[in-house]
Amino acid sequence: MSPFRASAPLTEHWRNFDLHRADGVATLTLDRPDRLNALTFEAYADLRDLLTELPHRGDTRVLVLRGGGRGFCSGGDVDEIIGRTLEMDPDDLLAFTRMTGEVVRAMRECPVPVIAGVHGIAAGAGSVLALAADFRVVTRSARFAFLFTKVGLSGADMGAAYLLPRMVGLGNATKILMLGDTLDSTEADRYGLVSELVEDDALDEAVTRLATRLSEGPAFGYAQTKALLSRELDMGLSGAIELEAVTQALLMKSADYAEFHAAFTGRREPSWKGR
Amino acid sequence: MSPFRASAPLTEHWRNFDLHRADGVATLTLDRPDRLNALTFEAYADLRDLLTELPHRGDTRVLVLRGGGRGFCSGGDVDEIIGRTLEMDPDDLLAFTRMTGEVVRAMRECPVPVIAGVHGIAAGAGSVLALAADFRVVTRSARFAFLFTKVGLSGADMGAAYLLPRMVGLGNATKILMLGDTLDSTEADRYGLVSELVEDDALDEAVTRLATRLSEGPAFGYAQTKALLSRELDMGLSGAIELEAVTQALLMKSADYAEFHAAFTGRREPSWKGR
Amino acid sequence: MSPFRASAPLTEHWRNFDLHRADGVATLTLDRPDRLNALTFEAYADLRDLLTELPHRGDTRVLVLRGGGRGFCSGGDVDEIIGRTLEMDPDDLLAFTRMTGEVVRAMRECPVPVIAGVHGIAAGAGSVLALAADFRVVTRSARFAFLFTKVGLSGADMGAAYLLPRMVGLGNATKILMLGDTLDSTEADRYGLVSELVEDDALDEAVTRLATRLSEGPAFGYAQTKALLSRELDMGLSGAIELEAVTQALLMKSADYAEFHAAFTGRREPSWKGR
Repeated sequence: MSPFRASAPLTEHWRNFDLHRADGVATLTLDRPDRLNALTFEAYADLRDLLTELPHRGDTRVLVLRGGGRGFCSGGDVDEIIGRTLEMDPDDLLAFTRMTGEVVRAMRECPVPVIAGVHGIAAGAGSVLALAADFRVVTRSARFAFLFTKVGLSGADMGAAYLLPRMVGLGNATKILMLGDTLDSTEADRYGLVSELVEDDALDEAVTRLATRLSEGPAFGYAQTKALLSRELDMGLSGAIELEAVTQALLMKSADYAEFHAAFTGRREPSWKGR
Repeated sequence: MSPFRASAPLTEHWRNFDLHRADGVATLTLDRPDRLNALTFEAYADLRDLLTELPHRGDTRVLVLRGGGRGFCSGGDVDEIIGRTLEMDPDDLLAFTRMTGEVVRAMRECPVPVIAGVHGIAAGAGSVLALAADFRVVTRSARFAFLFTKVGLSGADMGAAYLLPRMVGLGNATKILMLGDTLDSTEADRYGLVSELVEDDALDEAVTRLATRLSEGPAFGYAQTKALLSRELDMGLSGAIELEAVTQALLMKSADYAEFHAAFTGRREPSWKGR
Repeated sequence: MSPFRASAPLTEHWRNFDLHRADGVATLTLDRPDRLNALTFEAYADLRDLLTELPHRGDTRVLVLRGGGRGFCSGGDVDEIIGRTLEMDPDDLLAFTRMTGEVVRAMRECPVPVIAGVHGIAAGAGSVLALAADFRVVTRSARFAFLFTKVGLSGADMGAAYLLPRMVGLGNATKILMLGDTLDSTEADRYGLVSELVEDDALDEAVTRLATRLSEGPAFGYAQTKALLSRELDMGLSGAIELEAVTQALLMKSADYAEFHAAFTGRREPSWKGR
């Protein structure tokens, strides 16, 4: 989490979702429940900008994504996005699709762990946001719909054709992205898409428990776990092992590593500094 | 699917398998049932050439692979291939093994979705043909045998050591390819090797249903889902996301994307053009 | 397995584990049962050196890793490693973490198949040793603990963030490495981390059966299956298919391929030469 800032101000108010900060946990709630939290151009832009800023703030240890109302997120709004893209020139279309991809890239490259708390439907871009999170806490009645081919587009959207085969295998990913059918939570869990499956009325509690644990834990170690999991997907064995060696040597100079040893030998719980 | 052809003629008759075309679905049936559809040098060559031509024809939306008789395909013929390779010079051996690999590469790079309908045994090269398909519709009594080490060869054949870990994970792939043991359909399904598991007497119906669905659907979107799933296995996150952004912007100029919106707002089913 | 040696002697005695050779099977038993086989600096160095030498000896067809006493391996020793690293300079720390990574790299690049027989706990470096093996034969009461974040380090250690997502998928790997919680054998098996799950009293027998099978089988074919599975994780489809074509053409000139055909046509079992 870079402490280096210069002239650019931080954003104090996000107009296109609700953002609540408490004890190192930032909870972002998509809040258009009447549209099942369908995304607008402005919501994508706010997601992109928040994820870029978040590592610079230094006050956030975990980001939680939630949907207000009956579901997580129904994806791009049919009227406000699909309708308007039909009128757009190629360069503006690319600017839009690039922006949506930047959200996913920022989620994967951001050192802050991201938890998606998924209930109801996660469809289209909503399913990719859940996919790009580090943890998916999912209710039994939740469903995923990577429905892009059903609107005449490619099932490869916002990095889905990169991430999904690496999470559930090429065969399952082909079925899911090519056909675009809705998955229930049992099927999603079987494929490895679910980090924690919970009863419908237990989502808040499960998300809070995981977020609290991550926010109170060794944040530097978590950040370097996430960063290497992400980067090593694109590296060869030899480079990956060297990266892990250098990373671990650096962390052996961290306060938290010394704290573990002091706590262990002192027969007490460690008090993590996160650095 | 490239409409660009110049001097080379298209092949009207394939001597080494049966090929039936109807309503955009090409069904290729291996038809040496007395040899459990063992492959010959000429059958490999016909598979390679068909897959190269297929995207140029413009009349095929889906390719279905089936085996006539009691099973899918028992792999390279022990007499006609193994026996003869023992007499061959190194350059001819390489020409043969390269040809077999070209079949798999063409299956993965062909924009037409490929369905393997698997019953009975899929062994050796037969198991890799099924692996390289986009969908594997598999009967309960079907079996897979990646048996290459059992004939004294490497379990890595025709791309199996590339594809299988990306479908079932490195641990399962190691066990399957190193030992070469036969998998029943339950185990194959558990590993993620099965797209749809069906009763023995329901294979024709299940394959037809899936082929019809794909042939009537948004073919350009399907093609760009398959192409990106395949290519992004070999790309980094950043390049993959850019590729998806450009692809999606292009598809937003397609007839099918406009048709989705018109159908949605008109409260009717879309009539896909496939372009 | 390279027969090429020049001046460097082979090591006849390993001081930091027990090594027993019989019938082509080398069984390495970690033998500090009072410390749950915690690793020391010297044990890592011996593992690294053994794995480098092993392919040169020509007398070993399979390497088995076992733990003496109540468990497989509890990882780096808290006193002898963690305590001492707290005093070390950055260059020595990197020399240490590089050495641990070299053990995993040698396991993956060594042409000899490696079987980990896991009972009790496989924790920290112990869990990564099991992960880097080709086969994990695991008892029902065995547990895995990729606990690195719990000591304030990165969950990416010795190549774990490279290997684990390729074995169990990115979602499961993130949960396992980020949180560091203990997995029981059922969960590990469900994720694809277990090659063979056995009753607690059946481990010796299952390991011996697999080791014997591998030691008596077509060793050149096994070696080229392992080598290509490992290397093709880092290759594109086109290069991987070419590598398989050239490898298979080479193996078609091997004694074992001819032996298969002679045995098959003579209706007898093949007698593998391993070359």
